[in-house]
Amino acid sequence: MRTEKDFIGSVEIPKEALYGIHSVRAKNNFPDNTSFFIEWYKAIGIVKQACYETYTKFKQAASSKYADKNISFINDDILEVMNEAAIEVSQGKHFDHFIVPAIQGGAGTSINLNINEIITNVSLVKLNEQPGNYNMVDPFEHANVFQSTNDVIPTALKVAVISLFKELDELINEVLQSLEAVEAKTRNHLRQAYTQMQSAVPSSYDKLFSSYNNALSRDWWRVSKCFERIKEVNLGGGAIGTGISIPSYFIMEVVNQLQRLTGLPITRSENLSDTTANLDTFVEVHATLKSHAVNLEKMVSDLRLMSSDLFINRELFIPKKQVGSSIMPGKVNPVIPEFVISAAHKIYANDQLISSLCAQGCLELNAYLPTIGHALIDSIKLLINCNKTIKDNLLADITFKKKNDEETIFKNPSITTALSPYIGYHKASELTRLMNTKSCNIIEANKELKLIDEEKLKSLLKPEQLLRLGYRLKDVSED
Amino acid sequence: MRTEKDFIGSVEIPKEALYGIHSVRAKNNFPDNTSFFIEWYKAIGIVKQACYETYTKFKQAASSKYADKNISFINDDILEVMNEAAIEVSQGKHFDHFIVPAIQGGAGTSINLNINEIITNVSLVKLNEQPGNYNMVDPFEHANVFQSTNDVIPTALKVAVISLFKELDELINEVLQSLEAVEAKTRNHLRQAYTQMQSAVPSSYDKLFSSYNNALSRDWWRVSKCFERIKEVNLGGGAIGTGISIPSYFIMEVVNQLQRLTGLPITRSENLSDTTANLDTFVEVHATLKSHAVNLEKMVSDLRLMSSDLFINRELFIPKKQVGSSIMPGKVNPVIPEFVISAAHKIYANDQLISSLCAQGCLELNAYLPTIGHALIDSIKLLINCNKTIKDNLLADITFKKKNDEETIFKNPSITTALSPYIGYHKASELTRLMNTKSCNIIEANKELKLIDEEKLKSLLKPEQLLRLGYRLKDVSED
Amino acid sequence: MRTEKDFIGSVEIPKEALYGIHSVRAKNNFPDNTSFFIEWYKAIGIVKQACYETYTKFKQAASSKYADKNISFINDDILEVMNEAAIEVSQGKHFDHFIVPAIQGGAGTSINLNINEIITNVSLVKLNEQPGNYNMVDPFEHANVFQSTNDVIPTALKVAVISLFKELDELINEVLQSLEAVEAKTRNHLRQAYTQMQSAVPSSYDKLFSSYNNALSRDWWRVSKCFERIKEVNLGGGAIGTGISIPSYFIMEVVNQLQRLTGLPITRSENLSDTTANLDTFVEVHATLKSHAVNLEKMVSDLRLMSSDLFINRELFIPKKQVGSSIMPGKVNPVIPEFVISAAHKIYANDQLISSLCAQGCLELNAYLPTIGHALIDSIKLLINCNKTIKDNLLADITFKKKNDEETIFKNPSITTALSPYIGYHKASELTRLMNTKSCNIIEANKELKLIDEEKLKSLLKPEQLLRLGYRLKDVSED
Amino acid sequence: MRTEKDFIGSVEIPKEALYGIHSVRAKNNFPDNTSFFIEWYKAIGIVKQACYETYTKFKQAASSKYADKNISFINDDILEVMNEAAIEVSQGKHFDHFIVPAIQGGAGTSINLNINEIITNVSLVKLNEQPGNYNMVDPFEHANVFQSTNDVIPTALKVAVISLFKELDELINEVLQSLEAVEAKTRNHLRQAYTQMQSAVPSSYDKLFSSYNNALSRDWWRVSKCFERIKEVNLGGGAIGTGISIPSYFIMEVVNQLQRLTGLPITRSENLSDTTANLDTFVEVHATLKSHAVNLEKMVSDLRLMSSDLFINRELFIPKKQVGSSIMPGKVNPVIPEFVISAAHKIYANDQLISSLCAQGCLELNAYLPTIGHALIDSIKLLINCNKTIKDNLLADITFKKKNDEETIFKNPSITTALSPYIGYHKASELTRLMNTKSCNIIEANKELKLIDEEKLKSLLKPEQLLRLGYRLKDVSED
Repeated sequence: MRTEKDFIGSVEIPKEALYGIHSVRAKNNFPDNTSFFIEWYKAIGIVKQACYETYTKFKQAASSKYADKNISFINDDILEVMNEAAIEVSQGKHFDHFIVPAIQGGAGTSINLNINEIITNVSLVKLNEQPGNYNMVDPFEHANVFQSTNDVIPTALKVAVISLFKELDELINEVLQSLEAVEAKTRNHLRQAYTQMQSAVPSSYDKLFSSYNNALSRDWWRVSKCFERIKEVNLGGGAIGTGISIPSYFIMEVVNQLQRLTGLPITRSENLSDTTANLDTFVEVHATLKSHAVNLEKMVSDLRLMSSDLFINRELFIPKKQVGSSIMPGKVNPVIPEFVISAAHKIYANDQLISSLCAQGCLELNAYLPTIGHALIDSIKLLINCNKTIKDNLLADITFKKKNDEETIFKNPSITTALSPYIGYHKASELTRLMNTKSCNIIEANKELKLIDEEKLKSLLKPEQLLRLGYRLKDVSED
Repeated sequence: MRTEKDFIGSVEIPKEALYGIHSVRAKNNFPDNTSFFIEWYKAIGIVKQACYETYTKFKQAASSKYADKNISFINDDILEVMNEAAIEVSQGKHFDHFIVPAIQGGAGTSINLNINEIITNVSLVKLNEQPGNYNMVDPFEHANVFQSTNDVIPTALKVAVISLFKELDELINEVLQSLEAVEAKTRNHLRQAYTQMQSAVPSSYDKLFSSYNNALSRDWWRVSKCFERIKEVNLGGGAIGTGISIPSYFIMEVVNQLQRLTGLPITRSENLSDTTANLDTFVEVHATLKSHAVNLEKMVSDLRLMSSDLFINRELFIPKKQVGSSIMPGKVNPVIPEFVISAAHKIYANDQLISSLCAQGCLELNAYLPTIGHALIDSIKLLINCNKTIKDNLLADITFKKKNDEETIFKNPSITTALSPYIGYHKASELTRLMNTKSCNIIEANKELKLIDEEKLKSLLKPEQLLRLGYRLKDVSED
Repeated sequence: MRTEKDFIGSVEIPKEALYGIHSVRAKNNFPDNTSFFIEWYKAIGIVKQACYETYTKFKQAASSKYADKNISFINDDILEVMNEAAIEVSQGKHFDHFIVPAIQGGAGTSINLNINEIITNVSLVKLNEQPGNYNMVDPFEHANVFQSTNDVIPTALKVAVISLFKELDELINEVLQSLEAVEAKTRNHLRQAYTQMQSAVPSSYDKLFSSYNNALSRDWWRVSKCFERIKEVNLGGGAIGTGISIPSYFIMEVVNQLQRLTGLPITRSENLSDTTANLDTFVEVHATLKSHAVNLEKMVSDLRLMSSDLFINRELFIPKKQVGSSIMPGKVNPVIPEFVISAAHKIYANDQLISSLCAQGCLELNAYLPTIGHALIDSIKLLINCNKTIKDNLLADITFKKKNDEETIFKNPSITTALSPYIGYHKASELTRLMNTKSCNIIEANKELKLIDEEKLKSLLKPEQLLRLGYRLKDVSED
Repeated sequence: MRTEKDFIGSVEIPKEALYGIHSVRAKNNFPDNTSFFIEWYKAIGIVKQACYETYTKFKQAASSKYADKNISFINDDILEVMNEAAIEVSQGKHFDHFIVPAIQGGAGTSINLNINEIITNVSLVKLNEQPGNYNMVDPFEHANVFQSTNDVIPTALKVAVISLFKELDELINEVLQSLEAVEAKTRNHLRQAYTQMQSAVPSSYDKLFSSYNNALSRDWWRVSKCFERIKEVNLGGGAIGTGISIPSYFIMEVVNQLQRLTGLPITRSENLSDTTANLDTFVEVHATLKSHAVNLEKMVSDLRLMSSDLFINRELFIPKKQVGSSIMPGKVNPVIPEFVISAAHKIYANDQLISSLCAQGCLELNAYLPTIGHALIDSIKLLINCNKTIKDNLLADITFKKKNDEETIFKNPSITTALSPYIGYHKASELTRLMNTKSCNIIEANKELKLIDEEKLKSLLKPEQLLRLGYRLKDVSED
């Protein structure tokens, strides 16, 4: 064990531990077990890397220009190992030494300190020193140089979120392709439509899937817009966005460096105080993602209903993915839709959490960034996973019964709606009545009432005719 | 009293009532007292007007082209009075005959039927007939011609929402101007900044107000984006977006007509089934507005705190708007911030309501449009009213105490952070310690420790110096 | 017009208006249009009445005991007319002079002042004085005597809520009776049960309705518990529960008087500061009511599903209550379930609103009581109305098709589960396979496989046998 | 690797893995990473144990009574090892072989199957067999005997929750003791009270802490009530509460056995179908816990405010628990209150999640139990941890500045309210005015105005006098 000290007292720490006293304090103060997301952890690594590399440039520029001024800088070898350590963090290494839980007090201070301690101790090891030998490398003066929790942690959150957006973007795109495939293979496959769970006028499967397609296309577009909304970072702003005690060279340069390292088009905010204090863009971004969850819930609920045992016109079958009961042999449940619905509701709850905490900002800062960021990443990952399983386990093997439900449709009195332009509302109603009384289909009813030529009727009942957007007067009048 | 009938039975209705049996049924089925919003009612009037005018055009075109075909149309005089009646509805007239409550079953059928009955009966009166004489003018075949609840009601909701957005847009703009005025008059007025309610490095009032300004500028931009998101309507789509039994002429034309009448750049959706079934754009729009509520809550909470009796550095005073206590004479409370916070929380609740109901769409339709629309309009009106009262009753007469809190800032040890680039972190810490021990300010502490030239120190403590974004090496080194 | 003044300036008020300047200020400061609930208004009337009557007693007691001390009291004739005015308010009179909206700043000050002004001006009129002549009767010193907004308004809220609970209690009871009636008439009516929308082992309609019955019985019990939870009031506590400047005689007596007037067993809180500052009981009460909303939503969703056009085994029919479409003749929608579901979701949203605002209390008070109280009353009224329409328009005329779905059940392979205790799991599975292969029912399958005596099989398939809780070994072994 | 098969195909599984094919299917279908709570896992172990032990009793009873009937039972040695395995699960062993995530489809089937597979494979190992040799011991026929996912999993959830309640109960009790300790040491320590953040009449610290104490006492009582609300379990009910194919002996006995094993007074539900289908008690229980979160948030917000740098009358100091900034030396933040507030908001979000999913039950079952249960346990653990850190890290070392703020109180004009019973409202107002004009305290103002004898005044200003509930007429009149 080694001993570390702070203003409260001293703490025994395992000799090889890469975390230090401040991480231990946090762990004790915040007795929560929710795991911090590794995506955010890795992003902090890359942000720190950008800071160290910018510092190095700054040192070079300053040293050459003010060589005679004897300005003191961090040594090159320390900078080098800290940079290596930051790169390792950005690769997810040493994550088991990150001991701060996701739910915590402070606006991210404990996150930042835990990573500073990791970087410091990794650096010390690289320099063949013992962890904890902070005279050599210091978690505050070295690992945290020209940084503040309040600029590093939210910047890293944005880097993590934008990276996850790329993944989400691709997956939605793949789901769109799956939807298009279903659409293509169900063209003009008539189906009984329902409004408010009651029979309505006829539609087709491709129309239904085209509506999912359109909805998810909007979601795809939304993700790209979300990206735009959070690309402005406050790195370089220091504690409250005023950049106090940070060289302007560093402030002007560090975001460019981060952009280069990540390959993401992030930019420096025009108003660093605003970006530090106001978290409305997280509200906006998450709430936009919520629209995607709403579309997914609606779509899988439809698919679950149409493929279920209790649906009267079952023509659509979703793949059977696992045993559905521990006692009823052969029972298979719609577990993929249920997973998606569960995830969607968790996203709605995250949405409430994010906006209620974002509204609690006070003056220069919002103290709840850790919980906000955790909920945001949680939702994006849930959406990624929903799309993944929808694509692989739901849409990939969706099948349709050969025989379509035209018979059902022709027996449903609502079909007469399609004739009213041709024979008028009142004659159409006569057909409706007869169909109801005799439980017969429209062709049989017309045989009796002879309201329209049977060939004409059959042509009007063809899918492409029933589904054409609006009738042409020409068709009506030329009859 | 007059008697009206439907498939259930007959109902007695006051002789002059403009509503009919279907409105009465709804009133009895939905025993709620929440008032339907007149903005939506008026918008339905203008949508109906667009329908009647498009019908008239269609009739003219068809009559001239197919004059010999003997197609039956609604008479011109009936069309004319229905159009007049629709215009009256669009002006808010006859609203006391709209008896359907805001919380209701059905996707808007009862709303549509109540207005159809009003238009029909107003038309009958204009034709010197008794209300209820539906042989002459019929609420279904005439007032509802080529329409469906499922296209008229959501289209009207969008018209109402877009109109309210224009009002919101203007008000946010006015608040922005008020914020800029405050910013202008507090330029370089130093203030103690706080993070997590603890003293942080110094800032200024204009910086704080600039952060509000930026946040609300984003909101302003958001409103214009929301507008974009809901301008696509499904008018002409009929019950499920397939346009069944509606002439394609009408479908192609009616949205143009609505656009002309409203002066709003609404467009016809490319996929009418999607627009009928999926309500994700309402989720997106409301959730975006929620970001605005979050910004307002944060801003007024700050203003309330800084102007309150319990704030240690009170320099900012919000106007006294009303007596604050029925027993403590002279007590005045921050009622405007409290109103805004109450409204913001109601908007968060509306957001949950909207997304939970939008996710409950089923196949071709979402049955909950009335409650969704009500909540959406409620939130926009709350935001309009919040901005109104913020502008008139909060920002208009905000004042600042002459003497600023420089003294507080100079006594606060965090000020030494500003010196570390010049004298180094360790010497700065010596100053901090002495300031803490002797409870003296930085200038007095430096008099004793002589760590920096006093003139230099005073110049570094000037607001413009303290607030400059980052320090220049030149300043440090040339010293 | 008359002119009234306050510390800000003067306002012109309609000559006969019963409200005064403080109401007008509030109306201007809070530009909201949500109607305040009359139930709360009336309850404030009765609370004020209790205060005036207690004051009168106090005056009598004090006058007789300290006759020589020349203590000044409010005149008897003023007390008398104020009491009459308070009684009128408690009856809902003068509500059109209550001009403060439901969403407002302040913890109810504007509500209290508007009612004080109404009581004062009604009193003046009764004394043949002009409204506004506050020298004679004063809204603060007279109408508000020994009261504070912070004790009167929450106490009145509780009185209103408890009264509404009595109504809710009765209605749930009536719904329970309706459920029992359905249960009684569907005894042993077998039905296909579903878990996760897939066929499960058989059940019966009475079992399903008994589960609704049990759930709503819990709700009924909950309402009585809610009553217990909010019966403690802080009347007499003054601004912060310390009773400052209020005679202890009054504090000890006023709640008894309120109890006598209302006939409700309300009691004085043991810790008036706690009751003034902490609103957790509102959270608890509303959240408990939310359980009722959840049960209602679940029940009506089931009824909607089973009675819908898309349900495969439709045997249950809910009454047709209104025309369901403006274009599809004969379409009827499940509007009562939809109304209930809409209301339930509004209650969930209210729940979020109430808890988020109740958590925002600050030191001695919670500033958001008006919005909290409004949402609470809103929810209870919604629940009352849901129960009302469920009883009258849903359960009253629910019907069942004569022919039950035994055939369906016997064809469903899950029925073999019932045989496994008798023939073992593996033989039962053989039956299952055959039923699946040949699409035949269990009796036909057994005819072929002869796994169990046919008479025995038929007796095991009787409803009372299928639905008995657990099998007896005796039955198995005696076979 | 070993190969396992199901109706879809075969899967390769690590040779020693205790999970099987159904767990792997679930893992692939539900790509979520949220950890399942070990508390629930352990409780399933104990429920299974109760089932096996009841089975053994049943076997003994049946064998002795129907010895000649040749009924086939599970072998004793298999029963014995399964029981041992269940006990190990109840101790948390083998948890690394539980690979199903917390967010999943299905009502718990995958949870149950994973544990059945673990129990089966552990049993096989104990019998010196290879994992996967299901001919010997079968996850369905043996491990799941007389059980269903739908009775085992919710029953285990209740067992887990009730156990956690005991922990919560104890911790709230400890916090109550800490609050009483603070109350005791601040008796009659006057403090300026605030309503709506503005100065109100005086109060004391012990009054404030007594209000926290009362609020948390209610919470303590609530936890015991919650316990009552969920003690009814549906174990023995099978898939839908009808107990199909389960011997009545088992149904009648298994809950007693579970009660004996757990030592918890759980009981069998009177209506097993209701308990299986309706989850309203989870809504109720969680919502009740939400009241506790609201009280905690309110209390820690107060403590944070009063102890913060921005509070004008700072007399109360919360312990410094960790370094507060990576750049501002000496800054310490109120991280414990912030942790509690973060957790409280997460609990509010969980509450929304739980009620929105509980309302989505469909006919015989609610498919979302896994997510509901996870959120419920999450909230209880958060509350346990909040109370823990409040007790250890917030209340334990709360301190008060020696000098109290009497001076502040005497200078605050609201103090004159205390005199109005003695000198009348108008004379009290004269004092107020002078205090405002001259910025002097009440004693100085009275020196000038001589409205009350100075000794009398000083005695009225004593804490015990200022804080007495109501004044006695005797005091007023005898003057």
